Amino acid sequence: MAEPIQIGILLYPNVTQLDATGPAQVLSRVPGAQMHMIWKTRDPVPTDAGFSIVPTTTFADCPQLDVVCVPGGGGQVAVMGDPEALDFLRKQAAKARYVTSVCTGSLILGAAGLLKGYKSACHWAWRDMLKDFGATPVAERVVRDRNRISGGGVTAGIDFGLTVAAELAGEEVAKSIQLVLEYDPQPPFDAGSPEKAGPERVKRIYERLAPLLESRCKANAEAAARLN
Amino acid sequence: MAEPIQIGILLYPNVTQLDATGPAQVLSRVPGAQMHMIWKTRDPVPTDAGFSIVPTTTFADCPQLDVVCVPGGGGQVAVMGDPEALDFLRKQAAKARYVTSVCTGSLILGAAGLLKGYKSACHWAWRDMLKDFGATPVAERVVRDRNRISGGGVTAGIDFGLTVAAELAGEEVAKSIQLVLEYDPQPPFDAGSPEKAGPERVKRIYERLAPLLESRCKANAEAAARLN
Repeated sequence: MAEPIQIGILLYPNVTQLDATGPAQVLSRVPGAQMHMIWKTRDPVPTDAGFSIVPTTTFADCPQLDVVCVPGGGGQVAVMGDPEALDFLRKQAAKARYVTSVCTGSLILGAAGLLKGYKSACHWAWRDMLKDFGATPVAERVVRDRNRISGGGVTAGIDFGLTVAAELAGEEVAKSIQLVLEYDPQPPFDAGSPEKAGPERVKRIYERLAPLLESRCKANAEAAARLN
Repeated sequence: MAEPIQIGILLYPNVTQLDATGPAQVLSRVPGAQMHMIWKTRDPVPTDAGFSIVPTTTFADCPQLDVVCVPGGGGQVAVMGDPEALDFLRKQAAKARYVTSVCTGSLILGAAGLLKGYKSACHWAWRDMLKDFGATPVAERVVRDRNRISGGGVTAGIDFGLTVAAELAGEEVAKSIQLVLEYDPQPPFDAGSPEKAGPERVKRIYERLAPLLESRCKANAEAAARLN
């Protein structure tokens, strides 16, 4: 019997849960996949959506992963300053086949020093912060640079998941998963990117983010300074 | 201060987690929303993707919901035969503003007698079973009939969520949520519906489902018989 494909998704308090659960849904359907949801302990981890997810393993117990995936979310700032989490990611990344992220998870990879000289996706509102870590932000849904594969904001995790599924098991398997998950998206509105939503709506989001943006920029610069 | 909008999503063992977590991501961003993940106890509920979600409330403790949402998944068959769960849904549905489902969650609503004479969506592979419950299956991404709103298979939960968000809070709010969740889908393949995937792929899925299909058809007919 073939070795299982070890796929691990980082959890942390205040993770944007769909950044994790979208890829988990797709990748758990890859034949031979063994899914891990990882945090420091197995205590339930509160997400941004009002409920908790139970980790399946811990930093200490997690096997070497073939795919390490880091989701984004408000808790990302704390993880960027957490040496234990960054150390776990560095150790896994050293031997993983794919080092991946969804949304602002790429900033965590950046803070772990894993994106220096790489192109990466990120959520549109935070994308430029990748530069602090020597990465090149790319405004695409899924970005690949050597063995780094990254998705854009939140829902991009599903497109990302299918891309990674095709890498792991071939296009035909990925297409079957797409069919079984009925991924034939038909958004009722067309406001899913800054370009499509238009400058007025983008401005309102930035106004809402303003109190966060300054502290996040500072945290990002500090994480980058620790790296050098 | 306005009353919160009570939004509840049913959990159960072997739920297809994205059926629940997709809508949860969208609806938790509706201003004033209070999200509930509901099952019999607060013990973690194992999902289809190898991890568990912790319910935030129980049948006994759940407040009257404005939106009751039932996701699908392999565990749906057991729930169709669970009088306690069906009773909870019937009681909630009697006073809820919206009675909703994603994927094969509509079969659970059917088994609770809540879709008789209604049009409904469902996952493409199981859609016809809605007829057992006097419902009319509709091959659309999101289907609305009076206060019933339903999404098709798995990933349709995101399109469904945005539709419900617009109902609850208006289109402008739904568009902001779409932008923040960067829901600008770009599937890497075009195989997300039976029509797009083509007959060969559909046939392979049905072959894979064959061992399940017979027992599920039987369970569905039995659930319908109990209703009458």
